[in-house]
This record gives sequence, C-alpha cells and structure tokens, in this order.
Amino acid sequence: MTATPATEALEARFRRISALSGIASVLIWDQSVLMPSGGCEARAEQLANLSVLRHELLTAPDVAEQLATAEEEMLEGWRAANLLEMRRLYFHEIALSSKLVDALSRASLRCEILWREARAEANFSIVLKALAELIALIQEEATAKAEIMKISPYEALLRRYEPACSINSIEKLFGELEDQLPSLLNSVLEYQATRSDPVQPQGPFPIAIQRALSRMVMQAIGFNFNYGRLDEALHPFCGGVPDDVRITTRYEDSSFISAIMGIIHETGHALYERGLPLAWRTQPVGSARGMIMHESQSLLMEMQACRSEAFLDLLSDWACSAFSISLEPKNLFRICTKVKRGCIRVEADEITYPLHVIVRTRLERAMLSGDLQVAYLPSTWNAEMNELIGVTPPNDAMGCLQDIHWYDGAFGYFPMYTLGAITAAQIFQAAVRDERCIPEAIGRGDFKPLVEWLARNIHDLASFKSTEEIINMATGANLSTVPFLSHIKNRYLDE
Amino acid sequence: MTATPATEALEARFRRISALSGIASVLIWDQSVLMPSGGCEARAEQLANLSVLRHELLTAPDVAEQLATAEEEMLEGWRAANLLEMRRLYFHEIALSSKLVDALSRASLRCEILWREARAEANFSIVLKALAELIALIQEEATAKAEIMKISPYEALLRRYEPACSINSIEKLFGELEDQLPSLLNSVLEYQATRSDPVQPQGPFPIAIQRALSRMVMQAIGFNFNYGRLDEALHPFCGGVPDDVRITTRYEDSSFISAIMGIIHETGHALYERGLPLAWRTQPVGSARGMIMHESQSLLMEMQACRSEAFLDLLSDWACSAFSISLEPKNLFRICTKVKRGCIRVEADEITYPLHVIVRTRLERAMLSGDLQVAYLPSTWNAEMNELIGVTPPNDAMGCLQDIHWYDGAFGYFPMYTLGAITAAQIFQAAVRDERCIPEAIGRGDFKPLVEWLARNIHDLASFKSTEEIINMATGANLSTVPFLSHIKNRYLDE
Repeated sequence: MTATPATEALEARFRRISALSGIASVLIWDQSVLMPSGGCEARAEQLANLSVLRHELLTAPDVAEQLATAEEEMLEGWRAANLLEMRRLYFHEIALSSKLVDALSRASLRCEILWREARAEANFSIVLKALAELIALIQEEATAKAEIMKISPYEALLRRYEPACSINSIEKLFGELEDQLPSLLNSVLEYQATRSDPVQPQGPFPIAIQRALSRMVMQAIGFNFNYGRLDEALHPFCGGVPDDVRITTRYEDSSFISAIMGIIHETGHALYERGLPLAWRTQPVGSARGMIMHESQSLLMEMQACRSEAFLDLLSDWACSAFSISLEPKNLFRICTKVKRGCIRVEADEITYPLHVIVRTRLERAMLSGDLQVAYLPSTWNAEMNELIGVTPPNDAMGCLQDIHWYDGAFGYFPMYTLGAITAAQIFQAAVRDERCIPEAIGRGDFKPLVEWLARNIHDLASFKSTEEIINMATGANLSTVPFLSHIKNRYLDE
Repeated sequence: MTATPATEALEARFRRISALSGIASVLIWDQSVLMPSGGCEARAEQLANLSVLRHELLTAPDVAEQLATAEEEMLEGWRAANLLEMRRLYFHEIALSSKLVDALSRASLRCEILWREARAEANFSIVLKALAELIALIQEEATAKAEIMKISPYEALLRRYEPACSINSIEKLFGELEDQLPSLLNSVLEYQATRSDPVQPQGPFPIAIQRALSRMVMQAIGFNFNYGRLDEALHPFCGGVPDDVRITTRYEDSSFISAIMGIIHETGHALYERGLPLAWRTQPVGSARGMIMHESQSLLMEMQACRSEAFLDLLSDWACSAFSISLEPKNLFRICTKVKRGCIRVEADEITYPLHVIVRTRLERAMLSGDLQVAYLPSTWNAEMNELIGVTPPNDAMGCLQDIHWYDGAFGYFPMYTLGAITAAQIFQAAVRDERCIPEAIGRGDFKPLVEWLARNIHDLASFKSTEEIINMATGANLSTVPFLSHIKNRYLDE
C-alpha cells in the first residue's frame, strides 16, 4: 500500500518529531552523565526549545486536516495502527499552549536542580516553592488534557506514560495488592526470621572490576555494545535511541549487588528498544508501547529472570572469580531475596515495592487534586509510610525527597512500576509455559530462548496493538495480579 | 531602547536558532568522543533534521518582511549591529533550498564516515565517489549563494566562515607569504643545521599524567572546568557552547608535547567562546566574529604565547616534575621550534604551515571550479607538495586523506588557519605593546594580563564590529603579514 498525500505528509512530520525526541534523549543523558554544572542554563534553553518545536510540529494547523483526511482513507495494516498513534499524540499536544510547554520544560529543570540540593541536604524547604510552581503547571496540563480526552485530570497524566491507563483498573489491581501484600509480607518476614541472615560479601569491590563484570552480564543478556554504552550517573536510567542505547548506573565499592541488579533492569529496557521493528523506528507505531510494557521488560529481566536462584548461582560464580572472593552456595540468592520493611523504594524487595508505589500514588493524587498542600508533603509521606509499610523515614532525603520523579514533573509515573511488575510476572509465566527450557538456559547464562520469545511476542509488536491486546496475545489472559502473587508465594514461601 | 515588534520577533527567532546550533554542537561532540558506531545513522538523521529546522526558521516567509521593517527603523547600538548579522545569516540561508540543506548534511556525514575508513587504509578510492558527490552539492551551494551575494562561488564558501572574506585579500596576503616563506624556510633550515638536533624526551609518558598536566596547563591559561570539559577524540577540536565548552585531544604515550600544544590551541578557542558578552549570547551579534578571529585566538595562545622560550621553560619544569624526568634547559623550546619539511599539516612548524594551507587553497579552488577532477586529487596533491614544500607523501593517508575538512564539506576553511596566524601575530604584538608585562607574566604561568587584554579588545566585541574593524581597533593597523614575518625572523633567526 503506497502512502496517500495526507499520510505521506504525516509520516514525514512524525519522522522529524522522532528525530527531535532522540536528540532530547541524548541531551538528557549528557546532562546526567557528564555535563559541567555551568552548562545547566544553556541546556535548559536547548531542551525547552526542543519541547516547543516538537509541540509546534505536532499542532501545526495542517495536522488536524491531514489526520482527518487520513482517517477517511480506510487505511489498513501498519498505516492504520500508525494513524491511531498519531491521533493519540496529537490529542496530548493540542491540549497545551506552546507557552505552557515552554514553562513546563523550564520549571521541571529548575525544580530538578533544586531537588538535587534539597536531597543532598535533606532539606525539603529548598525545593518547596519550585515544586508548588511545577505542580500548578502540571495541574494546568492535566485539566486541559482531561477536557479534550473526556477523562479525569489524573488519568490524563497517567496517559502520558500509558495510552489507555484508567484509574479504575489501577484501583482494582492495586486494591488486590493492598489486600494481600501486607499479610504476605508478614508471613515472609516470619518465614525468613526462622533462618539466619545471609552473610554479606565483604568488599571493597574495585569499581573497575564491577564495570567489567557489568559489561559481561549485559553481553550475556544480549546487549550489543556496538549499539549502546554503559556509563555512570547519579541515578540509573536507560536513554538514547534504539541504535544508540545509553544505560547508566552508580557503583559503590562496598557492594556490587545493587549496581549489577540495576544494570540488569536497564538492560531489559534496552533490549525492548533495540527489539523495536527496524522499518518503523521513526514512526509512532514503531515506538515502545508505553511505560507499563517498558517497565515490564526491565522488571522481567531483573526480578523474574535474574533474581531467580538459578541465575544468582551463576552470578555468584562469576562474581567470585571476578573479585577473587568466595561465597557460600545460595548466599547471593538469599541476599537478593531478603525481605525487609525499608524507607527506600529503589532498595525495596519485590513484596514491599508495590506498597512504596501505592503510597506515592495516593500522595500524588492528593497533591494534584489540591487535597494535600505541598508544604505538608513530608509529614504526610511519613505518616503513610508508617501506616502501609511500618517504617518512619529518619529524614526527608530518605522520605519524600528520595525520588527524582515529582521534582522532574513525572506525576503519574509511579504506578507504571507496579503495573509493570504485575505484567512482568504474567509475561514470564507465559514465556516459560511456551518455552520450558528458559529457566534452565538462564541458569547457564543463555538468555537467547527468553529474549527471542520476548522479541516475537512483545518487542516486535511495538505499538501495533494496545497494551491490553499485547498482554492478551502473549499470555492468553487479561492483566491480573494472580501470576505476580503466585510468583511471590512461590519464590518467598516455597509454595 | 526597547524592541519594536519586528526586532522582538527576530530576536526570539534567532534565540531559537542559537539553541539549535548549540544542540548540533553537543551532538557532534558526542559523536566524535563516545557515540557507539551503530548510532551513526540515527545521528545523521538527527543532524540533518536540525539543519533543515534551522534553515526553515531562517527562511520562514515572515523573516524577509521583519528584516525589511527593522531595517527601516533606524536601529542603534547593539540592535543595529545585530540586524546586520541577521541579514547576513539570512542571505546565506535563503540561497539554499531545504532539500539541498538536507542533502548537504547527509552527504557530509556519509563522506566523513567513508573518509575514516579510507584514511585508515590509505586508500583514496574508498571515498572518491562520496567526495565527488559532496563536491557537486557544495558547488550547488556556492553557485546559489554567489548569485544572491554578487560574489564568486569560492568567496561564497569562504564567507560561511568569515563574513567579509575576499579572494583579493587572500591572494595578496598569501602571495606575500609565498614570496617570502620559501627563502625564509631555507635560511632557518640552514641556521638550525649548524646546531645539533634537540634531544627528544624518552617516554613512556603515562596518559593519566598527561591528562592531569593538560588540565593544569588549561587552568593556568584560564579555562574553568565548571564550564567545560577535556576529553579524547580522533581529532582535536573545541565544540559545545560558551558555558559548556567541550575540548578534545588525542594522547600518545610516546610523547606529551603535541597533545599539550594541541590543548593549548583549543583552550585559545575556548577562552574566546567563554569571553563572548553574556547579555548577547543567544543573538548573532554576541557570537564569535568569524573563523579568522577564532583561529587567531587559538594560534595566539599556541604559537605566540606558549611556543615562546619563556613559557616552554616553565612547561619543561612542569613536565619534569609531572613525569619525573629531567630535560636540558631550552630543550623543549628547541623541540617546539624545530623546523622541518614534512607531509602533515597538524605537525607542521610555523614556517611551513602556511605553505600547507596554500597547497590546499589552490587544490580546493581547482576542484570547485572543475579544473581538477577529484580522481586526480592524490597525484596533484603530491605534485603540489613537492613543488611548494619539497616533500612527497609516501601514501594518501599522509597526503590528501590527512585532513577531515573536505570530506566533511568544509571547503573554504583552510585559508582561515593562515589568516588566523597572521592576525594572531599582529594582535599579540599589539597586546605586548599595550601591556609590556605580558611575556614575563606568561613565563611565570600568569596569563591574566594577556587574557584580560584579549577580553577587552577582542572577545568582548563579539560581532559588534567587522573583523577588519576589530583588528584595526585592537592593533591600530590593517591586517598585514609584516608582524607575522617579523615574528618568524625574530623567533627562528634571532633577528
């Protein structure tokens, strides 16, 4: 099928938009990894200009007309799917003025920079005003989008990350977790209390060796360094573009475990990006489906595949030979599956992690609705943590300042982690059902059967189908908490 | 004076163009320093899109009208100077179609990538076709601009780098050098032949120590690492933006001299960028004047200030203590002022360097006019080198493949180096005349008097005046080869 003039014009436009998004991703990577501090203001100017240019490209007067024309053309196949995505992106952008886009870009960068200082000094007041200003802009965005999309403002924010995300489905799934996890947590804690604590391997673990081991693990999983890099930054992330994926991590010489597990997580993201179908890379239909699917790919790799006893036994061997240490058999597995009520989300185990997300989801909804004044965030945070997880952060750096997300404007993102974890469990279960050799292969460091299954069932579908459809096609069922909860019982209670 | 609507619109537009140029500069740095090879195609797409966006912003239908309106407004001060620059940039861009801009961007990147391979294998045929295609596009650009600007096509290319550059002035200045340098070269060679060769310090010189020494030298000259970085790349350059200057170099552990001298050169570029007046950074009037002035700033630092006996004595002390070696007094100065007929431009001494440039200027003019077919470039290059410098390159990697410029589309750039060298000599002479303490201060590693003089007389003027006016105001005379030639006689013949 050849392109009509309307689709051709739209495809050229979205190809350019894709280039601009790729550029922004490289600039953000650069800023996080190596930009000198003096460059902040110039970078803010660059990123704000990119956002506004992207906005102008998406909302130019002829786009509405071209979309309408194309929609009457009864397109089929990838062009039909692409058009749906174009329309969706258009709705998100047409709701906003370019002034608001510019203000949002600058306010998030300003707030993020103050957050770094606030977190370092564990002093929320440093960032209070900037956060309040940013929230006001986010509210403006949410309200404007809600009106056009006929959904609630918070849903409009969720849909920046996940196309069809609804509050109802989140409340249902999270409700099930909230019902079951606290008692599961108690059972696991009791169960683990019957055993001695696992012995922590003693460092120092030289960072040069950690780097080499990390690269080896990434390559085993399937990362190709001709198409990507591993670097260091304050917070681990996966950026760049599919043919130039930029993963970051942070090392400490006292332990190698959290850096390696973080890298495995980011490698899951990277494989998804790399696996997107080549021919549609520059079009919306060829982009990653959304952040539930993205987080499912990272968590599947980190939690399902690599936190397994089989893989951790292998990693233990690799680490022993890399660092010239010795570890008891099963020791690494026991460390990586140790459950603990803690303050920090990124250090949380699989069972408490969803509770951290539920706290954040409640709080961000309250801040956005105006029910929670930003000034009360620290105290409310602590109260919620105490209620749901049973810990009280000793200071705000370990409390409401620990995560970058809100200070960066990413309201509505936190639920993606837990929706991703649920999805990961369901997808991994289906993969193992289809390819029974997967767990044993992973134990040998052979990720091919798993990655090939993911490529066929997830990566290759990009945005050709909805998240729901992809999950259904890959697993034969709607998204449910059952596989996740049974995975937890299986791994942590030997059920 | 407040902005009128026309100037306000133009200023906003050029502010955005400045952000896009800054972005392109960071992307090019990234590509040269650390991008994985698989990212080439995506990066080409990003850079081509930026070029076309910049082109569209500069040539949008309302720009011509706004420029005409503003020109009738009798602007004064910086706004008047800014308007002249806007008009100049507009002329350069309006001559081209966006199709040509896109094609040029892609063809230069493609040709540059093939050139890397061709140079590595010393095989010109690898890049022949891509170069011929690139030249055809450059000819198209030159012809289109020549028509609008009423100048010759080659001049149109020169003016991409230097606003008012004329073939007449280049022919006059280069003619004087061609008249005098060959006999000067003979005299210097005879003079140096009467002495034994300077002893080369014996390595290895660990690269970590070279890095530390380089940073120390940069800081002494005035580079502030809060606003810039030093990294490694295949070819040394200075990129980034004024508040985030990215310098690169290449180290070899067999010698530290060429890396350090290269870094000093790039630091001269960096100080110029950093010294541009803060309030006008995003406007054309606040940008660097042109590449003659830019190369004058780097060559002034490298050749005039730091290849002096006084500074090299100091550098010798620093190097001895950094590498724990000992060097004879004056040895480093003798190494750095050793004159030799050689094949490689970037390793050339101050006397043969202009001859390398003259060869390239002749050849690029011949290729652009069609007098020289690209297939004959290697043999013609060798013949010219033999005639003018008296050497014949043993292979094309040391011949016509040695420099990136043509393969990157930078026709018309080479003359800037020698015009910059002449300018540097004249400016340095004036600076020392105004501030007699400069040479002695440099010998102590104190660059403040020099850099402050440059800030006042060159950097601060940005593009408020023409190159000619800046040179005149700073030195009291028109640009001439006299200071350069007398500097050569003074340093190399003790005259």
